[in-house]
Amino acid sequence: MEDMEIDGTEAQPYVLIETGNLPITVGNRPIYTNGRYISKSTPTPLKSTKTGVVYDRRMRYHANIHEEEHHPEDPSRISSIQSMFKAAGCLEKMIPINAREVTKDEVRLVHTDEHWDFVAKTSALSEAQLGKVADDYNSIYVNKETALSARLSCGGVIELCKAVARGDVTNGFANVRPPGHHAEINEPMGFCFFNNVAVAAQCLKRDLKIEKVFILDWDIHHGNGTQKAFYNDPNVVYCSIHRYDNANFYPGDPQAGHTHVGNGPAKGKTINIPWPRPGMHDSDYIYAFNKVVMPIAYEFDPDIVIVSAGFDAAEGDPIGENHVTPAAFGHMTHMLKSLAAGKLVLALEGGYNLDSISNSALACVKVLLGEHPAKLGPIKPSQECVETIYQVIRVQSRYWSCLKPIYIDSAEEKVPGKLVIDIMDMVKLFRTRYLFSKLKMVPAPLAPERLANRFTDLVCCSNDLHCKDVIIFFVHDMADYRADTCATSNLTNLATSYMSDSVYQYIETIINQSYGIVDVDVPPPTNDTQKTDLHDLKDLLIFLWDHFVDYANPKKVVIIGAGRGCRSLMHCINDRGRYIFIS
Amino acid sequence: MEDMEIDGTEAQPYVLIETGNLPITVGNRPIYTNGRYISKSTPTPLKSTKTGVVYDRRMRYHANIHEEEHHPEDPSRISSIQSMFKAAGCLEKMIPINAREVTKDEVRLVHTDEHWDFVAKTSALSEAQLGKVADDYNSIYVNKETALSARLSCGGVIELCKAVARGDVTNGFANVRPPGHHAEINEPMGFCFFNNVAVAAQCLKRDLKIEKVFILDWDIHHGNGTQKAFYNDPNVVYCSIHRYDNANFYPGDPQAGHTHVGNGPAKGKTINIPWPRPGMHDSDYIYAFNKVVMPIAYEFDPDIVIVSAGFDAAEGDPIGENHVTPAAFGHMTHMLKSLAAGKLVLALEGGYNLDSISNSALACVKVLLGEHPAKLGPIKPSQECVETIYQVIRVQSRYWSCLKPIYIDSAEEKVPGKLVIDIMDMVKLFRTRYLFSKLKMVPAPLAPERLANRFTDLVCCSNDLHCKDVIIFFVHDMADYRADTCATSNLTNLATSYMSDSVYQYIETIINQSYGIVDVDVPPPTNDTQKTDLHDLKDLLIFLWDHFVDYANPKKVVIIGAGRGCRSLMHCINDRGRYIFIS
Repeated sequence: MEDMEIDGTEAQPYVLIETGNLPITVGNRPIYTNGRYISKSTPTPLKSTKTGVVYDRRMRYHANIHEEEHHPEDPSRISSIQSMFKAAGCLEKMIPINAREVTKDEVRLVHTDEHWDFVAKTSALSEAQLGKVADDYNSIYVNKETALSARLSCGGVIELCKAVARGDVTNGFANVRPPGHHAEINEPMGFCFFNNVAVAAQCLKRDLKIEKVFILDWDIHHGNGTQKAFYNDPNVVYCSIHRYDNANFYPGDPQAGHTHVGNGPAKGKTINIPWPRPGMHDSDYIYAFNKVVMPIAYEFDPDIVIVSAGFDAAEGDPIGENHVTPAAFGHMTHMLKSLAAGKLVLALEGGYNLDSISNSALACVKVLLGEHPAKLGPIKPSQECVETIYQVIRVQSRYWSCLKPIYIDSAEEKVPGKLVIDIMDMVKLFRTRYLFSKLKMVPAPLAPERLANRFTDLVCCSNDLHCKDVIIFFVHDMADYRADTCATSNLTNLATSYMSDSVYQYIETIINQSYGIVDVDVPPPTNDTQKTDLHDLKDLLIFLWDHFVDYANPKKVVIIGAGRGCRSLMHCINDRGRYIFIS
Repeated sequence: MEDMEIDGTEAQPYVLIETGNLPITVGNRPIYTNGRYISKSTPTPLKSTKTGVVYDRRMRYHANIHEEEHHPEDPSRISSIQSMFKAAGCLEKMIPINAREVTKDEVRLVHTDEHWDFVAKTSALSEAQLGKVADDYNSIYVNKETALSARLSCGGVIELCKAVARGDVTNGFANVRPPGHHAEINEPMGFCFFNNVAVAAQCLKRDLKIEKVFILDWDIHHGNGTQKAFYNDPNVVYCSIHRYDNANFYPGDPQAGHTHVGNGPAKGKTINIPWPRPGMHDSDYIYAFNKVVMPIAYEFDPDIVIVSAGFDAAEGDPIGENHVTPAAFGHMTHMLKSLAAGKLVLALEGGYNLDSISNSALACVKVLLGEHPAKLGPIKPSQECVETIYQVIRVQSRYWSCLKPIYIDSAEEKVPGKLVIDIMDMVKLFRTRYLFSKLKMVPAPLAPERLANRFTDLVCCSNDLHCKDVIIFFVHDMADYRADTCATSNLTNLATSYMSDSVYQYIETIINQSYGIVDVDVPPPTNDTQKTDLHDLKDLLIFLWDHFVDYANPKKVVIIGAGRGCRSLMHCINDRGRYIFIS
């Protein structure tokens, strides 16, 4: 233990030994005095983390009175979570922040006066009237206490955000309901009445002059209300990871898609990460954080981070059907803690499995209190995740330098004075020339115009088809192309980009064996039109059959299909005869 | 405050309400009982973080006796850091882990017997002999206490790593010297004698059956010794961020380059992030962490993380000349804490500005103790950083699925049976055809063969050059190509890739004005041969001048240069006459 101690002479941060030597300079600053540096300041002492928590039992008063069956947005959601905090010994370490009712003045920062009045008036309605109100809107229930609960929920989030922004506490968890992120400017929606997080963010800006707010919404649903509230605001990032299912998952609006990025000066400040299916795991979320959320957040450099912390992406949630574990929620919380000097607020949104939400919230709170997140297994994202993230990066790359290179699509470049040519046209031309010069094959003339437009230079035949006993009808995918791209400009380096064709050798062999050949290079599907593509392809193959293969009247026809064309080839065969099919 | 309390009935984590309803099932698991979930377990209580620290004043005995002038690896390095921990109130919160001398048995896990003996024997040498020993090796000094200090330094790191691995402490900082990461198997090097971190990692594997170790080396120098120690070990990742300067920065070995990735089953387990110049900032380090270090670390899923924590990349270091702030060191520490359930050891390596290293080490230790890292400004990496990271990702993408798509170069694909064509050849052919079909321009025949090989299809002329009064000699860069790449396969989507040519409009105008034109499309430089490229280009332009422009004998020649060809064009003009030059 004695050896652990520092020598007495060095009780100061460290000792400056003045030797009279000239200081070494870097640039024109003298920084190095005989190898010892001058201490510029005494160190800032270690700060202890203070974690706030908002809970108020009156937020349980809002309950479903309209029907007998259980409603997932149940009052026990928040009490379950609170009990879990207590059972794990966290509650006693947290600093209670009292919820109070949001004021009309605050709500108006996001919602209309009419909306405030509408919510307020529900407390005076009869049960029948309440039922009518619920029916009039998208996915809500209302009782006489709804207005109070909603005001407390919103006010609680505001109070916690302010406490964190002021530094009264380092971070915190708002265990509140009803949730907020679906609430629209002028209407309640999706279990939500006031947009708690949006109102709180606006209050921070107005009352505490907070400049930049980063809102991360990991609720399984897209926060339509929050997105709208800040769609034109360059100082608030709204980043949502949600199940999208091609706009078929609630709220079912294409505005949750990745191409919705904000407006005007706020372009890039809305970031939607829309999962194309249920069943996403920890790896997918961690990958999204590593690839998109954290790079953008670090670049944005917010003054505070607010999480719309729904736990309906959690393993076991009956609505979300994703598989995020408590450990992964802890990791996401840990990552976000690195921002804004630790100023981080988690505000509950959805989440309907009491077990899942309690365990998930606990994992987050432990991390808020300073515990490291639990070990995850090896992170391996799903292919759908990788593709989704790639699409998000493509779109967001124009707004965030951390996501360089910038992806530009040809439509944008097609301006007067610029010649824009699809690489496909070059490739087709090259192929035709190559097959002619090496194998004396010729491009097949095609009709009608629809097929000619689409497939010219993709179909080549041996030049003496009519005098061959054996014709090979060869339908295969186009060769692979690999482009070498510059990291910063996204321009292709032509010198190191190449085509790799594993089919040519077969064509060469066929020609060398003196067989006839009708060769069809099937282009990759163009997005959104895959069905048309396959239909066109079938028509092409039937046309080729009638006018080339069958017309040449060979003794034998060998049909070879490989790749995307196989299905259309089957259709063609069914239409035109029976032959051996080798896939 | 009363409202903060949970209702008495719910003092348990939460209440299961049995209603007798059939449970809803997901797959074949009953998970949902009337909307309420069954609690599976009581929560794990909140754990407090324990941070260990190793310090022993005897590690200060190793000192430079060979010369009068100050040596940067000064004994006060560790006492400065220790004093800083004390001054900031951190030391009292840390758990002292006693250093002890490493044993021969342990050292042999990395080094040779001869090396152990060599170090041991230095304590018995005379001052003259010590001087001789120092001179025999690369950048070391030795005194009679060196062996003791080196054994304590290594033993201290082992003890801390074991304490963390066993869970005696959560994490820790080994404030030790001499450093270790340059020490080779059989020789001391770069101020290092025993490779502290490598020996400790091997001890964890042997003695505590730790499987996977992630070593992150943020010292400004490449840890040549550590890389070698694990170059064939698939269970130890060695990831180093270092100044490289194209192998001109110490230790000056190309093995520190990004293409060195490990061997055999350990391919991808060595990750070098080599900065091409000094002057890298926080943004570059955070970008490297976000883009490469953390994704790989999450995928590897280590059981413990050891940092070779040199602070010579810190702002103010006279050797590193980088600008990493204490805040950024805190952020890197915070990020690494997310791994391995928080099992994280920082072991001091280099760092020579006492102020910088003390502040940096303090920032790390505060984060180890649970404080959030300080706010950084907006993270915007330098272009050199983006390019470096891109190159690292290209190489590592074959080994880590988080870095997909896999980059493959054409050399690898050029195997028998596969036709591999450079995209450049397609593009050139297309251009020639296009200029002929639209503007009746013809490709210029070139000589000698060297120029023909390189520039055929890149030079086109109007077809009646000899009867024009005015000839435009137009030298410009090739058009831009943008490839649209699939996120998972790295194959190019031809349908959405395109060429964008802003030069064609000028050629068209020239032809329409009935001027003659000699048009030169300058290809991008091929790597490593830029000088040859420019030399070839100059020869081409002189050839074109002599055989086309001058030979056609026009009344006027207008020379237009744009882009990379300008310099060669100037050379050509200087060689062949005086004309107005419009750049």
